[in-house]
Amino acid sequence: MSPPTTFSQRHLLGIEGLNRLEILHLLDLAEEAVAVSRQVQKHKAALAGRTLINLFFENSTRTQSSFELAGKRLGADVMNMSVATSSVKKGETLIDTAMTLNAMHPDIIVVRHAQAGAAHLLARKVDCAVVNAGDGAHEHPTQALLDALTIRRNKGRIENLNVAICGDVLHSRVARSNIILLSALGARVRVVGPSTLMPTGIANLGVEVFTSMREGLKDADIVMMLRLQRERMSGAFIPSTREYFHFFGLDEEKLAYAKPDALVMHPGPMNRGVEIDSSVADGDHSLIREQVEMGVAVRMAVLEALARNLPNG
Amino acid sequence: MSPPTTFSQRHLLGIEGLNRLEILHLLDLAEEAVAVSRQVQKHKAALAGRTLINLFFENSTRTQSSFELAGKRLGADVMNMSVATSSVKKGETLIDTAMTLNAMHPDIIVVRHAQAGAAHLLARKVDCAVVNAGDGAHEHPTQALLDALTIRRNKGRIENLNVAICGDVLHSRVARSNIILLSALGARVRVVGPSTLMPTGIANLGVEVFTSMREGLKDADIVMMLRLQRERMSGAFIPSTREYFHFFGLDEEKLAYAKPDALVMHPGPMNRGVEIDSSVADGDHSLIREQVEMGVAVRMAVLEALARNLPNG
Amino acid sequence: MSPPTTFSQRHLLGIEGLNRLEILHLLDLAEEAVAVSRQVQKHKAALAGRTLINLFFENSTRTQSSFELAGKRLGADVMNMSVATSSVKKGETLIDTAMTLNAMHPDIIVVRHAQAGAAHLLARKVDCAVVNAGDGAHEHPTQALLDALTIRRNKGRIENLNVAICGDVLHSRVARSNIILLSALGARVRVVGPSTLMPTGIANLGVEVFTSMREGLKDADIVMMLRLQRERMSGAFIPSTREYFHFFGLDEEKLAYAKPDALVMHPGPMNRGVEIDSSVADGDHSLIREQVEMGVAVRMAVLEALARNLPNG
Repeated sequence: MSPPTTFSQRHLLGIEGLNRLEILHLLDLAEEAVAVSRQVQKHKAALAGRTLINLFFENSTRTQSSFELAGKRLGADVMNMSVATSSVKKGETLIDTAMTLNAMHPDIIVVRHAQAGAAHLLARKVDCAVVNAGDGAHEHPTQALLDALTIRRNKGRIENLNVAICGDVLHSRVARSNIILLSALGARVRVVGPSTLMPTGIANLGVEVFTSMREGLKDADIVMMLRLQRERMSGAFIPSTREYFHFFGLDEEKLAYAKPDALVMHPGPMNRGVEIDSSVADGDHSLIREQVEMGVAVRMAVLEALARNLPNG
Repeated sequence: MSPPTTFSQRHLLGIEGLNRLEILHLLDLAEEAVAVSRQVQKHKAALAGRTLINLFFENSTRTQSSFELAGKRLGADVMNMSVATSSVKKGETLIDTAMTLNAMHPDIIVVRHAQAGAAHLLARKVDCAVVNAGDGAHEHPTQALLDALTIRRNKGRIENLNVAICGDVLHSRVARSNIILLSALGARVRVVGPSTLMPTGIANLGVEVFTSMREGLKDADIVMMLRLQRERMSGAFIPSTREYFHFFGLDEEKLAYAKPDALVMHPGPMNRGVEIDSSVADGDHSLIREQVEMGVAVRMAVLEALARNLPNG
Repeated sequence: MSPPTTFSQRHLLGIEGLNRLEILHLLDLAEEAVAVSRQVQKHKAALAGRTLINLFFENSTRTQSSFELAGKRLGADVMNMSVATSSVKKGETLIDTAMTLNAMHPDIIVVRHAQAGAAHLLARKVDCAVVNAGDGAHEHPTQALLDALTIRRNKGRIENLNVAICGDVLHSRVARSNIILLSALGARVRVVGPSTLMPTGIANLGVEVFTSMREGLKDADIVMMLRLQRERMSGAFIPSTREYFHFFGLDEEKLAYAKPDALVMHPGPMNRGVEIDSSVADGDHSLIREQVEMGVAVRMAVLEALARNLPNG
């Protein structure tokens, strides 16, 4: 794992701000990590003697596990900290916790927080590298990188593919990071969903907007379903799951609107029967399990790339 | 630790299905692990570069710690996942969680689940080795192996010993695994308890059934007490603890029914004053603390034996 | 890290019972650990093959993390066990849990418990080394050691310094351990706080007692603020935070009573606006962040010193 150092960022706070070469560098590094993860003797050098802290203010078994395994496979000392936000005043805790952790001299902090901008705030306060593992509805860069890697491995390219990102775009950091990344690599991205779950100004990101699955999936190479984030919706508009599934849930019938060789993705965890039908989730077109595998590989790549840019790296 | 490879199972899902040689192989391997655990420099080679996931759908500080230490002493990367069953639909979670974890390429998953058959289901879905750490009232094979090891170390043999398993047999996976294992190694096993806590068809397992401690403990070499699992009892029959202790709690008086050199066991955690009196639990006849030590050794043996049978093992 | 073996304790249960040389030995060892923690390749030999268990009956993200990092940086296998006291009878659990853990052959147990004397009780029951990470309102020796190290690094000495420990002395194990340690190293220690939060007989520890911040801070070199432990107060007297801050909260105005180069400390987590104002906590006189860094170093020193005195050490 010693590619040319084209990645010179100190933190990974979002896809926004990365250039094409940096993204491709991370994807190539992740390809190597896939091979490493499948071997018995995992690569152990890159983070030996380094300390990685997983600081999760929101629960996420999947993402936290993925970073934990990635860190351990690279030989890091990994420490998990799950902080219940309910019992503390949020802004204050983030900073006080950050300063406390910083004083313990970690090398990398992976942070997830309900507030957009939390990772950026943290990065300004600490000396170590910060990886954004999701900040509110803002960004989730490693998810977008793993999605891109999964697409590239299965389609051979990202350029000129038609990617339809479908469902609850409004509350989705996954959608936002993917739109930026896939556009940067030359895909044509559209979003599909009910107008009530579409952020205002979404068209400014250079995507087409559809409110009908039939139109939105036409000619799609990739159908990326989003989790319906009911837990982030306040009172007024919470769709009934039955009605939502009827109009926007991906089943065999709606998938037929896309290209015959279209592939299906979902960042997980899935609401089966809400945004996706089990027949599609577990069917031949699904890449959902491969996304999880690519998740570990991409996180290994990101940790390794950042470690190289640390002082004494 | 390099005995002949007589253990060719891919998983350890239960004692049922193991033959006598396989059981003895694991016990011998565990004897070596006892020595290793008592040294400063623990054995670190067998699972180096391997990933072990502890997937616990039921809380169990004791068993989870035991597997965690066993894995770490063998050099594995260990990741704990405690999944609150309360918040999720059980069957679905198990499979979706399993598939997610499987995609992360672990080498061994240790699973505890409230549902009988959960470990078998998991083993059919994943590529890695699965160890059953307790599935409902079905099996708990490493507990039976550690009990057998403890008995053999103290009595020199298992064959022809009279083993009385006493108490809440109905809800006990420990009882079931022990009956199968100890019978396979030639012990004469009986169960003792109130008829309301005796599973129907228990006699089919080849054991004698007693409802009186006086008769059941007669000539016993080993008195194995079971935890009264009130948390698994529904409404109708929940015995009062005072009455239960009076008839079935092991105290000095009842222990006197057994052989003078009878030894006392309990899988823990104990309900002191319910199924066992503190004077007996902490007395000279008690093997309860040694059982815990043997627990780590047996789990090291199982992990090592399974690791050898992994692809690239 | 190979200083002369002047530390011959088997456990670290309190500052009480340590002599001056032993304290200085630990502080010197911690100085070396500071350097180690700041390097990339952390020291990995001292606890290789050793098992460290963090047994916390009270939650403490900060202290537990500090011990976890210290253990991992020294190469130990670290296992965290957080035991909810609410659900169990305390005395019984401590002993049963201790005996279970002891049977797993750990080398060091770090314990925090709400009951004074818990660490001493544990040390009598187990074979391994025990480190007291806080027992009720009794002692918290590693906190006192890290405070002493922080003072020595910033003032060049501890002897003859005027140290004012301020606030809720009654409920503070930090105060008690610091009084003993700093007095042993020749500091002049005073306590300052409302008479209702002052333990009876505090003067027996050889400290001056003040109930006014103006008088108590006069000529102070070090102003050590304590957390107001409202969670340990029962009914009768719980001060209003506004009133408490008015009389005893450290702000710029009260800090001016101390020497111009006085330094401010707090064991954390802080109640900002209650016992300390943010302007002081984050100001130029504050050592609060350095205390956290010294915490990891001191715990590395303690673990290393105890490991040397283990059997086969």
